[in-house]
Amino acid sequence: MAAIHETSGGVTYPRGFVASGIHAGFKKNKKDLALIYSATPCAAAGVFTTNVVQAAPLLVTKEHLEAGTVKAVVVNSGQANACTGTRGLKVARRIAELTAAQLKISPPEVLVASTGVIGEVPDLDLTEKGLLLAREELSPRGGSSAAEAIMTTDTHPKEVGAEFTLNGVPVRLGAMAKGSGMIHPNMATLLGFVTTDAAISQGLLQKALRQAINDTLNMVSIDGDTSTNDMVLLLANGLAQNAAVTTEGPDYQEFLEALTYVLTKLARMIAADGEGATKLIEVRVQGAPGPEQARLIARSITTSNLVKTAVFGCDANWGRILCAAGYSGAQFNPSLAEVALISPAGKEVMAIEGAGLSFDEVKAREILEQKEIQILLDLHQGPGNAVAWTCDFSYEYVRINADYRT
Amino acid sequence: MAAIHETSGGVTYPRGFVASGIHAGFKKNKKDLALIYSATPCAAAGVFTTNVVQAAPLLVTKEHLEAGTVKAVVVNSGQANACTGTRGLKVARRIAELTAAQLKISPPEVLVASTGVIGEVPDLDLTEKGLLLAREELSPRGGSSAAEAIMTTDTHPKEVGAEFTLNGVPVRLGAMAKGSGMIHPNMATLLGFVTTDAAISQGLLQKALRQAINDTLNMVSIDGDTSTNDMVLLLANGLAQNAAVTTEGPDYQEFLEALTYVLTKLARMIAADGEGATKLIEVRVQGAPGPEQARLIARSITTSNLVKTAVFGCDANWGRILCAAGYSGAQFNPSLAEVALISPAGKEVMAIEGAGLSFDEVKAREILEQKEIQILLDLHQGPGNAVAWTCDFSYEYVRINADYRT
Repeated sequence: MAAIHETSGGVTYPRGFVASGIHAGFKKNKKDLALIYSATPCAAAGVFTTNVVQAAPLLVTKEHLEAGTVKAVVVNSGQANACTGTRGLKVARRIAELTAAQLKISPPEVLVASTGVIGEVPDLDLTEKGLLLAREELSPRGGSSAAEAIMTTDTHPKEVGAEFTLNGVPVRLGAMAKGSGMIHPNMATLLGFVTTDAAISQGLLQKALRQAINDTLNMVSIDGDTSTNDMVLLLANGLAQNAAVTTEGPDYQEFLEALTYVLTKLARMIAADGEGATKLIEVRVQGAPGPEQARLIARSITTSNLVKTAVFGCDANWGRILCAAGYSGAQFNPSLAEVALISPAGKEVMAIEGAGLSFDEVKAREILEQKEIQILLDLHQGPGNAVAWTCDFSYEYVRINADYRT
Repeated sequence: MAAIHETSGGVTYPRGFVASGIHAGFKKNKKDLALIYSATPCAAAGVFTTNVVQAAPLLVTKEHLEAGTVKAVVVNSGQANACTGTRGLKVARRIAELTAAQLKISPPEVLVASTGVIGEVPDLDLTEKGLLLAREELSPRGGSSAAEAIMTTDTHPKEVGAEFTLNGVPVRLGAMAKGSGMIHPNMATLLGFVTTDAAISQGLLQKALRQAINDTLNMVSIDGDTSTNDMVLLLANGLAQNAAVTTEGPDYQEFLEALTYVLTKLARMIAADGEGATKLIEVRVQGAPGPEQARLIARSITTSNLVKTAVFGCDANWGRILCAAGYSGAQFNPSLAEVALISPAGKEVMAIEGAGLSFDEVKAREILEQKEIQILLDLHQGPGNAVAWTCDFSYEYVRINADYRT
C-alpha cells in the first residue's frame, strides 16, 4: 500500500472541517461542549453501542444519519442523557435544533453525542449559550479544543491525523476520541469522531468504518463495561477531490487501511489512558485454531482483572493469562500454548507446551516495569491471530469509580 | 417442606465423617493440607470448572468419580497444580496413592483437589509427611481445621451444616468452601466440599448437586475470572439410615432443598469474603421476560467493576446498574425498569420506567454504608426472577492481586 503519513492534527486536519471546544457550564471548570462543522455536506457513517439501554442522543443521531448528508456534530460531556426517558429524547432533539439554528442548517444535518453521568440531562439554557460561543470559536485549528471538550475521566485529549493518497491524490483523515472507563469490546466502544476530505460513497464509508472498528476500537477493553452512549462517527466531505470511491477496488482498500491505521492509534491511546492506567498492555494471540478463537482469547485476557492487577504489580503471573484464555469460550488445546512477555526491556518466555518454565523472575519484572507491555500467547495450533489492548488495573481505577458522581 | 435446622458444623457434622487440617509446609505458616474421610464408602458427585484449561487434580478426581464409591478427599492449598503438564498429572495421581496408603484404601477411593498459584506443583515429600500427620489428626471435630486448611486469600473459614428429615428420619448435611478470587459464575466456581449421611443413589446425588449449584454457587461472582481448579464435591455415606433416595419423589425434593439451602449459605459467605470485600451485594432481578434473561442480567450486574466500585464508594450510581443489565446479552425493554437499593437502613427507589427519580441521596448513602446491600432491579415485563451475589470492589482487591505470588 501507499505510505501513510501520520500527523498530530485531529478532526480539523482534513480540508473544510472546523471545530471548537468551549466551557458551557455542564461541568465546573472544564471544557464540556465540542462542535465540528463542515460547510460542505458530508457523507456520514456511524457505529453504535450494542447495549440494550441506548442513550437518547444515539437515537437522534441514528435518525439523522438515515436522513442523508450531515454538516455538524455536537458533543457535550458531563451528562450522558441515558436512562432519561422521553424528556431525554426531547432534550437531544432540541440540542440538534439549537445547533442547526446557530449554523443556519437543518436539524437532520446535526449529529448529537453525549458522555457523562447516566440519568442526567444536559441543561438546555447552558447548551444554547454554549453553542453561541462554540459557533464563534469554530476554527481550522479548533480540533484540539474539541478533543479536550469531550473528555470525562481521560487525563489527556486523544487525537490523530493521517495523510495518504488515493490514486495519486492526497487525502486526509483526522480523528479524536474519549475513553476511559465503561470501555469493552464487541461493539462500538467509547466516543470517536473521524473526519476525512476523501470523496467516498456513504455505503462504502459505513462499510469501511465497521470493518476498521472490528480490529481496532472493538479490541480495546478497560473494565468490561459497555456504555450506553458509545458511538463512532465518520464524516467525509469530498474536498480532497479524489475520484470518488464508489467500488471496493484498490482505492477503497487504501482508504480502509488508512482508517484502520488511525483507529489503531486511537485504540492504543484509549487503552494507555484507561482509568487509573500506569501501563499499556497489548495482547497478541497467535496460532489459534481460527481468527474468531484468537479474538475471543485476546479479549478475554484483556478483560481479566487478575491479569491486569498482576501487570500493575509487575508480577509475572503467567498462569492467569492461560486461565483467562481457557474461560474465553474459545476451544483450543492448552497443552501446546506458549506464553511470553515482551517490552523494550526484552522478552521472556514463561511457559511452553502449556506448562511453566523456570524463567528469570528479575528479567520478567524488568519487562513488566516498562510503560508498554506485550503479552504474547502462541497456541501453536492454527492460523488465527488477533491483537487487543488494555491497561493495567490500579488502585486509581477504584478511587476514580468509587466516587464518580460526587 | 420440612424445617431445615442450621448448625455451625461443617463437613464432619454428618455421621461417620472425620476430617483434619494441618500445616504440611506448602505455605509458610498456615494450615495447607485438608483431609476428609469416611470409613463407610460414599456415593459421590462432582461439578467442575468449564475452563478449557483444567488443573491436574480435576482430571484425576473425574477418573476416580467414574470408578465408583469413594472414602476420602485430600486438598492442598498453596500450589494449584494447573498448567503443569504431565508432571502435574503424575503428582496428582501420586497424592491419591499416598493418601490411599495412609488410610489403607485404594487410590480410586481418593478425590484430589488443589488451590493456589497456577503453574506450581505441591511438593511430594511435604505431602507424604503432611498426610501422616493429617491421618493422625482425623477427628469428628476436625471440620473447622479442614475448612481453615483450604483457604488461600480467604480471610476466614467457611462452613455450614444443616439437619432436616427424609421421611421422618433425621439427615445431616455439612459443607465447607474456599473463595475468594478467580470466582465467576456459569460453572462450578471455587472449591466446595459437601458431606451428607443421607442414603441416596449416585445418579440423584449428581443431579441434585448440579441443580443446586445452578442457583447458588454459579450465581456468585467476585472478579469475573473462572479458575482452572474449581470443583464442588458431594459425598453421601448413607449412615442416616433413611430409606435410600432412588427416585425423584418428595425425599429427593427435600434433599435438594436442604442442599440448596447449604450452598446458598456458602455462596453468600464466599461473596461476602471476596478479595478486598467490605460489603456483600445481593442482586435480585424480578419481572424479566424469563428466568434465563433474569440470570443473565443478575450475573452481568454482579460482574460490573463500575457497579462494584460505586457500592464501595457508597455512590448510588444507579445508571451503572441499568447499563450492566443492558449489555448482559438479555433482551428486554429498558423503559419499564425500576431500580432500588435495600439494606437494613431502608429502601430507596432511584429509577422507575427506565428513568431516574430525584431520590434522597443522603438516605441512599446510608443504605450503601451497611454491610449487606440488596440491589433490586424489577423489569416489570415478565415472570423471570434470579438472585446473584458479589462483593464491592475496593483498593484491597488490587493490592491482593498485584503481588499474589510475591
